[in-house]
Amino acid sequence: MNYGIVIRVLGSLLIVEAALMLPSYLIALSSQGPDRIPFLITILLTAIIGGLMTRKKSVQTSIGAKEGLAIVALGWVFASVMGALPLYLSGSTVNYVDAFFEIVSGFTTTGATILTEIEGLPQGVLFWRSFTHWIGGMGILVFTLALMPALGIGGFQIFKAESPGPVAGKIAPRLRDTAKILYITYVTITLAEVLLLTIGGMSIYESFIHTFGTVGTGGFSNRNGSIGDYDSTYIHMVIAFFMVASGVNFSLYYSFFRGKPTELFKDEEFRLYMKIIAIATIAIAIDLWLVSYHNVGYSLRDAFFQVSSIITTTGYGTADFDLWPTFSKGILLILMFVGASAGSTGGGMKIIRMLVMMKLVKREVGKLYHPRAMMPVKVNNKVVSNETVARINSFLALYLLLFLFSTLLVSLEQVDLVTAGSAVAATLGNIGPGLELVGPTQNYSFFSIPTKILLSLLMLLGRLELFTIIALVAPKHWRIDV
Amino acid sequence: MNYGIVIRVLGSLLIVEAALMLPSYLIALSSQGPDRIPFLITILLTAIIGGLMTRKKSVQTSIGAKEGLAIVALGWVFASVMGALPLYLSGSTVNYVDAFFEIVSGFTTTGATILTEIEGLPQGVLFWRSFTHWIGGMGILVFTLALMPALGIGGFQIFKAESPGPVAGKIAPRLRDTAKILYITYVTITLAEVLLLTIGGMSIYESFIHTFGTVGTGGFSNRNGSIGDYDSTYIHMVIAFFMVASGVNFSLYYSFFRGKPTELFKDEEFRLYMKIIAIATIAIAIDLWLVSYHNVGYSLRDAFFQVSSIITTTGYGTADFDLWPTFSKGILLILMFVGASAGSTGGGMKIIRMLVMMKLVKREVGKLYHPRAMMPVKVNNKVVSNETVARINSFLALYLLLFLFSTLLVSLEQVDLVTAGSAVAATLGNIGPGLELVGPTQNYSFFSIPTKILLSLLMLLGRLELFTIIALVAPKHWRIDV
Repeated sequence: MNYGIVIRVLGSLLIVEAALMLPSYLIALSSQGPDRIPFLITILLTAIIGGLMTRKKSVQTSIGAKEGLAIVALGWVFASVMGALPLYLSGSTVNYVDAFFEIVSGFTTTGATILTEIEGLPQGVLFWRSFTHWIGGMGILVFTLALMPALGIGGFQIFKAESPGPVAGKIAPRLRDTAKILYITYVTITLAEVLLLTIGGMSIYESFIHTFGTVGTGGFSNRNGSIGDYDSTYIHMVIAFFMVASGVNFSLYYSFFRGKPTELFKDEEFRLYMKIIAIATIAIAIDLWLVSYHNVGYSLRDAFFQVSSIITTTGYGTADFDLWPTFSKGILLILMFVGASAGSTGGGMKIIRMLVMMKLVKREVGKLYHPRAMMPVKVNNKVVSNETVARINSFLALYLLLFLFSTLLVSLEQVDLVTAGSAVAATLGNIGPGLELVGPTQNYSFFSIPTKILLSLLMLLGRLELFTIIALVAPKHWRIDV
Repeated sequence: MNYGIVIRVLGSLLIVEAALMLPSYLIALSSQGPDRIPFLITILLTAIIGGLMTRKKSVQTSIGAKEGLAIVALGWVFASVMGALPLYLSGSTVNYVDAFFEIVSGFTTTGATILTEIEGLPQGVLFWRSFTHWIGGMGILVFTLALMPALGIGGFQIFKAESPGPVAGKIAPRLRDTAKILYITYVTITLAEVLLLTIGGMSIYESFIHTFGTVGTGGFSNRNGSIGDYDSTYIHMVIAFFMVASGVNFSLYYSFFRGKPTELFKDEEFRLYMKIIAIATIAIAIDLWLVSYHNVGYSLRDAFFQVSSIITTTGYGTADFDLWPTFSKGILLILMFVGASAGSTGGGMKIIRMLVMMKLVKREVGKLYHPRAMMPVKVNNKVVSNETVARINSFLALYLLLFLFSTLLVSLEQVDLVTAGSAVAATLGNIGPGLELVGPTQNYSFFSIPTKILLSLLMLLGRLELFTIIALVAPKHWRIDV
């Protein structure tokens, strides 16, 4: 391992993070909040540590596979360790672990909170917490890459490790250009939503907060009642629309605006994503209509909002879906695992992986009749390689294993199975709220410190799609033989 | 499809079934029960229908892949349709669907019951219900094959479709000999358990009933309180030992007694199976000891019994595990999915599939460091082909999909998620009892008729390992392209 280059890139990352804290500091200053000094201390400390790290000399300048993995895994941990300081120092959380949980939840765009009384917190802290969604959504290292000189092969490794989904597509030949294009698209979508929310009567400050939560598919709000606080179908629908839009592969938008609009509608992942949203919305709406709401309009509105919120792993709520009938809750629980599209800001297992698995199943049924037929799995008319299929399978298996074992560990808190299971599903999938004791009107504050650390780790594992983190902690002999 | 041969083999199957009902009829006769006439009618009807079917002439005599699948899928349905008659005709169940559910639960070695008051039922019916476990455990078609002249390539197709696990191993070059060897082993184990239970003071009639439930990994009892009714650690431990033994690949016993005893302990599936039992038992025992029992001995005893019962998908109970702490319940729920070994009488996903998946995950982690390395997955020092890996992956994916969608359908009964999910897990995995409303002291009688039919279908899907049934009902275009 070339430690020199790892330390240097991590140093650059911290300097970038210090700069990204400036807007929150300015808000703290202008609102005369108790978080002014905490932000100042954190920014200085982060910049100084980062600066010292970038001075580290290294003989080699190339980044290999190992270095790339280490940079991404450690980068996210370091950014969270420093990013949690303003919350802790300003007294917004009871202890440092709570602050760490909250900021990991921010960066990983989970949106699970340990805060019980959000509205009383300083404005700078609330802004920073939501801003981490925005940064983490597209990737803090991708952002750093966009600013830094090209890093060669290891740069792509970093990009791959941070981009959600089994295959990271380079849009432009140069990685730096790809990162820039992604961020330009991201900023455009962000500004569009802020504008539309402001038109709907939301203040500019709150428009930014909820836009960060939407386009990063995070789900933090500055209101205790989340989006349910706004009694406006317009605002619900604007947010639902942008949640759905943020769950789409961003590279499809690039093709769309580059004059190939049909590519979006031909994309098999996009089509399946839309189909799932439509079917789940209709199924839940019918269930709500018949069993609890007895009103078609409200049933459809709340069903669409919640399906969009859960499948994109945002986690915003307009209704307490924990009180919905079991069938509707079951659908939402399944959507927590399905997740959004690859290359979006959403979490979960990702639609593309479901698509490949469904095609594998279909192929096996076909093989029962034609045992010797060669039937390669194709997505968008391209053959999916056996290697990619194997990686997808391993990912899904590891995801389920992690889910099961973590649920067992959380169940040691003597909570019921639905609470334990949905808490793990909601953190591993970067969703936020679960069911029962971690339902949409509850929070994660009652868990013990070890469980909070476990759940923080699950959020990181989910965001970095398991293998990046696993590689750092896997036993040495795994690296050589099977 | 060569319908002639399919009808003829199904006819032989029904004749075999009629013969297998004779012991139950004799018990009904000797106990002067109300089930004498129902058994007589059923036996005559089944034999006559079977006889007429075997007279069907067919031009070809070879059985292809399609015919093999049709024979197995329809064979199990036919056997259940006829096997349910004595229960219905003797008034043991309220309606025919209940009787069908109960006998499907018997043949598939599930052990889920819709009966609320077992002890008042006629002895012949109780014997038949338990005997179906024994028949279904090793496979009714395998039994038919053992009696019939060799069937060529299609015979192996039938054997494969009925044997649990991804790879069916021929022990002897001729299929008929393989079937015979398996049944001789099975009968030996059966008689050994009957002997040991009789020594422990159980009556011969009850020893047979509980042995059928054990070696078939079924779980039906003639007592309302299941094995918990016997206040004897000896009986608990004999049954636990035979449950564990029945979850082992039967072909390993053949090697063992053929002078290769080390093969058993070298077998990777057997080792993992034993490890899982040991770890789960200790984990649950500690949890029970600390949280509820406060007694090491009882904790270990009940933990071992229940782990053996659930992992082998038998479903016998000595304690109401639904009252155990969440951690212990969570482990049992996971074991419901894991299941027993391939080539055993147990259900679930099977240990070997877990083993292959774990090796796949390890390989992917290794590949992060050595992206170009060739690392084939090996089990027992043999390379697992890509085809087998793909089939295992598809199986697991389909299993989970079925689990999720069936849980949604069951949740329409307005039961809680744990009841709905565990009812599906317990029928699809051929276990029997689940949690909450379908817990070990409860039963399945309260479900509606459509749900009972769904759960019966899940039991058949689980026993025949999904694809056999799916192939019969899959849309035509699945059979050609992916």
